[in-house]
Amino acid sequence: MDTNKNKYTKKQGLPPGTLIHTGEVFEKETLITLISYNNDEYFINESTSIEEILLLIKPNYVNWINITGLQDVDIIAKIGKEFCLHNLMLEDILNTHHLPKAEDYGKHLFFTMKALDMNQIDHSINKKQLSFVLDKNYLITFQETKSNLFDPIIDRIKHKKGRVRNMQCDYLFYALLDVTVDSYFTLIEYLDDQSEEIEEELLNNPTREVVKKIQQKRKEHLSLKKAIYPLQDEIRKIFHLEEDLIQKTTHIYFQDVIDHLQQIVQSLESFREIVSNLLELYLANNDIQMNDVMKRLTVVATVFIPLTFIVGLYGMNFKNMPEIQWEHGYIYVWVLMIGITAFVMAYLKKRKWF
Amino acid sequence: MDTNKNKYTKKQGLPPGTLIHTGEVFEKETLITLISYNNDEYFINESTSIEEILLLIKPNYVNWINITGLQDVDIIAKIGKEFCLHNLMLEDILNTHHLPKAEDYGKHLFFTMKALDMNQIDHSINKKQLSFVLDKNYLITFQETKSNLFDPIIDRIKHKKGRVRNMQCDYLFYALLDVTVDSYFTLIEYLDDQSEEIEEELLNNPTREVVKKIQQKRKEHLSLKKAIYPLQDEIRKIFHLEEDLIQKTTHIYFQDVIDHLQQIVQSLESFREIVSNLLELYLANNDIQMNDVMKRLTVVATVFIPLTFIVGLYGMNFKNMPEIQWEHGYIYVWVLMIGITAFVMAYLKKRKWF
Amino acid sequence: MDTNKNKYTKKQGLPPGTLIHTGEVFEKETLITLISYNNDEYFINESTSIEEILLLIKPNYVNWINITGLQDVDIIAKIGKEFCLHNLMLEDILNTHHLPKAEDYGKHLFFTMKALDMNQIDHSINKKQLSFVLDKNYLITFQETKSNLFDPIIDRIKHKKGRVRNMQCDYLFYALLDVTVDSYFTLIEYLDDQSEEIEEELLNNPTREVVKKIQQKRKEHLSLKKAIYPLQDEIRKIFHLEEDLIQKTTHIYFQDVIDHLQQIVQSLESFREIVSNLLELYLANNDIQMNDVMKRLTVVATVFIPLTFIVGLYGMNFKNMPEIQWEHGYIYVWVLMIGITAFVMAYLKKRKWF
Amino acid sequence: MDTNKNKYTKKQGLPPGTLIHTGEVFEKETLITLISYNNDEYFINESTSIEEILLLIKPNYVNWINITGLQDVDIIAKIGKEFCLHNLMLEDILNTHHLPKAEDYGKHLFFTMKALDMNQIDHSINKKQLSFVLDKNYLITFQETKSNLFDPIIDRIKHKKGRVRNMQCDYLFYALLDVTVDSYFTLIEYLDDQSEEIEEELLNNPTREVVKKIQQKRKEHLSLKKAIYPLQDEIRKIFHLEEDLIQKTTHIYFQDVIDHLQQIVQSLESFREIVSNLLELYLANNDIQMNDVMKRLTVVATVFIPLTFIVGLYGMNFKNMPEIQWEHGYIYVWVLMIGITAFVMAYLKKRKWF
Amino acid sequence: MDTNKNKYTKKQGLPPGTLIHTGEVFEKETLITLISYNNDEYFINESTSIEEILLLIKPNYVNWINITGLQDVDIIAKIGKEFCLHNLMLEDILNTHHLPKAEDYGKHLFFTMKALDMNQIDHSINKKQLSFVLDKNYLITFQETKSNLFDPIIDRIKHKKGRVRNMQCDYLFYALLDVTVDSYFTLIEYLDDQSEEIEEELLNNPTREVVKKIQQKRKEHLSLKKAIYPLQDEIRKIFHLEEDLIQKTTHIYFQDVIDHLQQIVQSLESFREIVSNLLELYLANNDIQMNDVMKRLTVVATVFIPLTFIVGLYGMNFKNMPEIQWEHGYIYVWVLMIGITAFVMAYLKKRKWF
Repeated sequence: MDTNKNKYTKKQGLPPGTLIHTGEVFEKETLITLISYNNDEYFINESTSIEEILLLIKPNYVNWINITGLQDVDIIAKIGKEFCLHNLMLEDILNTHHLPKAEDYGKHLFFTMKALDMNQIDHSINKKQLSFVLDKNYLITFQETKSNLFDPIIDRIKHKKGRVRNMQCDYLFYALLDVTVDSYFTLIEYLDDQSEEIEEELLNNPTREVVKKIQQKRKEHLSLKKAIYPLQDEIRKIFHLEEDLIQKTTHIYFQDVIDHLQQIVQSLESFREIVSNLLELYLANNDIQMNDVMKRLTVVATVFIPLTFIVGLYGMNFKNMPEIQWEHGYIYVWVLMIGITAFVMAYLKKRKWF
Repeated sequence: MDTNKNKYTKKQGLPPGTLIHTGEVFEKETLITLISYNNDEYFINESTSIEEILLLIKPNYVNWINITGLQDVDIIAKIGKEFCLHNLMLEDILNTHHLPKAEDYGKHLFFTMKALDMNQIDHSINKKQLSFVLDKNYLITFQETKSNLFDPIIDRIKHKKGRVRNMQCDYLFYALLDVTVDSYFTLIEYLDDQSEEIEEELLNNPTREVVKKIQQKRKEHLSLKKAIYPLQDEIRKIFHLEEDLIQKTTHIYFQDVIDHLQQIVQSLESFREIVSNLLELYLANNDIQMNDVMKRLTVVATVFIPLTFIVGLYGMNFKNMPEIQWEHGYIYVWVLMIGITAFVMAYLKKRKWF
Repeated sequence: MDTNKNKYTKKQGLPPGTLIHTGEVFEKETLITLISYNNDEYFINESTSIEEILLLIKPNYVNWINITGLQDVDIIAKIGKEFCLHNLMLEDILNTHHLPKAEDYGKHLFFTMKALDMNQIDHSINKKQLSFVLDKNYLITFQETKSNLFDPIIDRIKHKKGRVRNMQCDYLFYALLDVTVDSYFTLIEYLDDQSEEIEEELLNNPTREVVKKIQQKRKEHLSLKKAIYPLQDEIRKIFHLEEDLIQKTTHIYFQDVIDHLQQIVQSLESFREIVSNLLELYLANNDIQMNDVMKRLTVVATVFIPLTFIVGLYGMNFKNMPEIQWEHGYIYVWVLMIGITAFVMAYLKKRKWF
Repeated sequence: MDTNKNKYTKKQGLPPGTLIHTGEVFEKETLITLISYNNDEYFINESTSIEEILLLIKPNYVNWINITGLQDVDIIAKIGKEFCLHNLMLEDILNTHHLPKAEDYGKHLFFTMKALDMNQIDHSINKKQLSFVLDKNYLITFQETKSNLFDPIIDRIKHKKGRVRNMQCDYLFYALLDVTVDSYFTLIEYLDDQSEEIEEELLNNPTREVVKKIQQKRKEHLSLKKAIYPLQDEIRKIFHLEEDLIQKTTHIYFQDVIDHLQQIVQSLESFREIVSNLLELYLANNDIQMNDVMKRLTVVATVFIPLTFIVGLYGMNFKNMPEIQWEHGYIYVWVLMIGITAFVMAYLKKRKWF
Repeated sequence: MDTNKNKYTKKQGLPPGTLIHTGEVFEKETLITLISYNNDEYFINESTSIEEILLLIKPNYVNWINITGLQDVDIIAKIGKEFCLHNLMLEDILNTHHLPKAEDYGKHLFFTMKALDMNQIDHSINKKQLSFVLDKNYLITFQETKSNLFDPIIDRIKHKKGRVRNMQCDYLFYALLDVTVDSYFTLIEYLDDQSEEIEEELLNNPTREVVKKIQQKRKEHLSLKKAIYPLQDEIRKIFHLEEDLIQKTTHIYFQDVIDHLQQIVQSLESFREIVSNLLELYLANNDIQMNDVMKRLTVVATVFIPLTFIVGLYGMNFKNMPEIQWEHGYIYVWVLMIGITAFVMAYLKKRKWF
């Protein structure tokens, strides 16, 4: 929380391009993985030293350098120097609160987005910064923490599944983007399930907790919106890049990702409407229940108040009250009271009060 | 439900273009129907074997290959191979949750949309994926299940009604599109009727069920919106295609479909406003009713509470209460109480409380 | 109602261009009026036979063919054949639920819109389909029923008022458009008056009927919106037509109609806001009134409940209650009760409860 | 009111360009003022005869013809004839309900807008039509009534303040536009002050009147919106005019007016949000107050109802009620009642009910 | 307050370009600071005399002239004259209520925006006008009051931190813009913290004050929106400037500022939604609480009203009431009352009323 509170304050007044890591620290060490492959063979190397990795980069292979853990600013700076990355780009990689963005730096493309997944314990949504630097010969990915998000791609590379081993860096970039965007679907599904659960609860057994849950869902929507809505436009920028970086033949794949995002955005939009309808539904139910409560109270009061008046009447101590002395006075009063009750009940029944 | 829940999860991490059927299984078998016709004659053949059908395709005829049942991925893959369809296209055909989309694959046009109809039993809306592949010489349609949606077109082909027998594949594509879009009107009509029924019920005999019904209508609107809103833009893309696939002279027909969609979108928009007005109306009525209930309770209480006080007063047992001893004390009290009641009633009457 | 319900269903599955009249039948007979004029003279002929009319058309005159009554599909088909009108256009003329639309058919312009007027008896809004076919030498108008909407124009032609007799078909088209759009103003005025009446009623003597009236106004707004909003864009399409049909010098007149429509759209938008404010106002008033009712009830209850307790207290029959035996006990109780009442009243007064 | 009601009806069916004055009559006479000036000298002449004024127009001077009072259609028609103004333009000048508009009539520019000021007596907003016709050599202004709006400009011309005496007609047009737009600021300020007063009243001493005042503010917003929102776009049209009418060097001044309008539109938008927030605030306060009232009633009822039951209990007349006969029965009852009261109070206190 | 009220009125009717300071007076004296630097050395001079400063300006250095205090119109006018600034520009510098704006004056660029910071005492937001005039050789900044906003930049110049000493005026302009925009983040953070505090308060201990606080937040949002929303578009105008003023290589820095603004705008938008959700949440909670209160009242009334009727019944004084005479009548009544209470409690329990 503390780290979060100071997310912007940390940086204020520093020269632009000053490298400061603004997120929480998830990993103690920065780990660098190099995956080099071509159609014939592949190599995987892991190290904590960037110099070591640099020696292993093979020309004419697709070189994927995956960096996990961003808290060690020095290593990031060193990587930046070795690959000639612009200081503003490094700053964006380390600013883990940045919105999704694609930026053309001429020789390479910078792309940053969020990896989203659900915390299985407290059902909150985790946001992790994910940055890509695409060059003709290599793709660098920066992740805040280790995750199994990219495992299916590594698996495809290892076992030559799909076409990834026949393709260049741009296809690898697409494949990673695609697997990340596909993971959003799971999240949306989970949110839809939750909103259905809330609706169920709301219609069957509404409690005060429901409002808190709805409020929670609204916040999650706002958070997802920030991470997802700008993505389509940013990916579209890729189409204006030099053929060197992204070949025309891979455009159709990126278009496919944009289509998926369109579907996600629509689902998110529906989710927003559903959640806002839920609150209305809850309040409507509350109003209706209140109405019922008041009707019941009014029925009880309308029936008993006149009766209580009558019994009070004959509880008076006047010397001269003829009814009191009547032989069957008591029975007459009962008849009167039953008559009044019957009349009131009939009246309320006709008015559909119960 | 289960199938639905896993709709996205199923695919996560698989290589793009991996063919997986994501919908419910409606048909056990995939049935292939070939309808070949020109101005002079027509042939209809049905088979479950794609090889058999391929032999029957006639050059210089309009060949319409209608495939019903999508659960057999192998057959779809085989069809894809025979007609050189892109893997991403096949993936979209099998992803029955895809949004409407037109995509130009150079040699052919891919178009996917939803066939919507109303379940006559539980009044829910059925969504079935409908995909088209348009080539110069043939049109392939993919349907999730058998339906009688295209029967009028088959009928026109058989009996040479209208101009379909004189026209090419593009006109056939239009005719199928048109008949599908026209079927949306029936749905909208049905929704309008239902919202009028709800309004009727709401104004005459409002119950708690009304809120659930309104909520149901809102969900249906969201679902229809997703299926219908993107269609206009997607159809418009057809106008930028090569003359080979869609001739300039058929453009006016597609424009007509867009006009119909415009009308449907407007009706859907009105429907949304009407449904949202209904909830407001219901809550307004509820408020007014509550007001009435409270007024009634207040009238009863205001009339009887003072009377009950008076009768309580003369029920006290003080040794020395002069009124108690008066000859006509009891009658005076009645006069007093009738006087108070008359006064209160007059006051409330003046204030228009009943 | 029945006719209306089947408005779309009637057509589903029929070949495009099949002529079916989808509206209510207002006229038994289709009447054709030919008004030919130039600067020097004018002729008016009426007939139910299109052949007869065709013989009377004069070259080098402005020929206005006004057709009232659309239920006789054969005559419309015959007219379509004689004037070489596209089948889709004839279909639109007969589809009386079509949205406003301008369509360039090369040789002629098709324009369809709604004539709106208020039913003087039940204050509902009548919508009548109005279609125009503009050619270089003639203008055909199709109306669902006889109306006096165009009488001022006929009058101007007869008495050479304004410039209509000096101008061509395009000006006549403009004049008819203008008179129809001007009639919308009357409708808006009437709606504004009604909303003011509702506000008056709402502030002075609110009843349950007000909500129904507001709901009615909302529906009327939705209905008008559908008929009026698309018009501006459709008229603008006229500017892209060949000079043959609409001369550059008449553009300024059509721009004037667009300006009027802008004003109407703005008024309609204001009307929507006003109506939606009215409902809020009504509910606010209801809330305030409820508050008042509850305050009153609380005042009555707060004053009398303690008093009733006290009189009940001294109605107890305990053997040993010293106060009962006091000489002035009864007077003391009165003093106590008046004291409590005064205190409660003062307290509530201070809190501004009445 | 009557005049207003017929504002549109008056014109329906008349030939376009028919001159009819649609506003209220503010002035009995139409007064024409000619102000001619150049850098060296200036002349001011007033007359009710347009012929007289025409003789006084000086070539190579800036001639400003200010016309106040629009009810005399003949004079307006005469002016139109003398200056070759298009009939549609004259119609717009006389249609005092027209929206703001700039129209390029080739040789001259027509501009119409509203002069807004606050009625000092009933605090309503006055709208007066203001029309400009700008030619190379003269500027004609049409006002519905005399006002001191333009006095500062006349003063600057008289005393050679600012640069107006060195500039051409276009600068004069700008100066008049600027002074009118600046007067809008005063109005906005006044509205802001009023909304703050309402907020003050609402938080301190809310009465039913507040809702009426808020409703009033909303109507004023709608009215201002209509007069002000279209202005920016209309002024922007000036930039596309021939250099003859508006010189490139004066563009920066018109841009400045647009900037001011941007500020006014933003303020108006804020005003709308503030007013709509006020109603929400009022209703929220009402809800909270209602809650308080109900809590209080419930407290009173919860405390006294059990006590009243107890005193009623010992008011029963059963022959055999042991408590009645106890020596200290009365005291025990008091102890019981005080105990119950203490318990209920403690319970409600813990629940923070008072 | 007074000054504020007259902010627009002060200027109405004055010739455009008349210099009047419209804001509050924060500083008694206008202080001019000149900071000249190149890669090798820097000079800082302070003075209240513009003539003195002018003598110290060095060609081939970056000259930053920072002016604090705007109340002395004469000095501002003198500065305007010395640097050939357009009168409208000077007017905008002094109009401290101006919206953010970039304007290209050919030779120099004018940029105005707001410096926002939080008043540490009453937690209100301070808005200070900040204007920039960028020329090839110098940058003039105008501030309403002294602040430490630019201190980090001065520090970087002094200590040669970052690249500012190697760059031209355009980079200095960027650096100042960047530091100002970064300061907005702190404000947003503070607002987010406050809205979280309000939510906490609302869920745990809701009081009437919460509504006032929410209203306050809404007003702050409106105020920030006015200051921040237009900035992105205005900065984008910089890209269309001559290379002379802003070099192509610095564009990427301004793009970075726009990205930050995008993030701020999104956060502000979220803030708006959060605040508006808070009010809904509060009202929902209020409704739920009301429901609870009413339920409780109804429970108390439903339980005790029948009991009170029974005890009243046996308090009647009829001569002949058999139950009264029964030996165990009193005990039977207790049994009856306990039975009724148990029944009512069970019924309410089943209905989940408590």
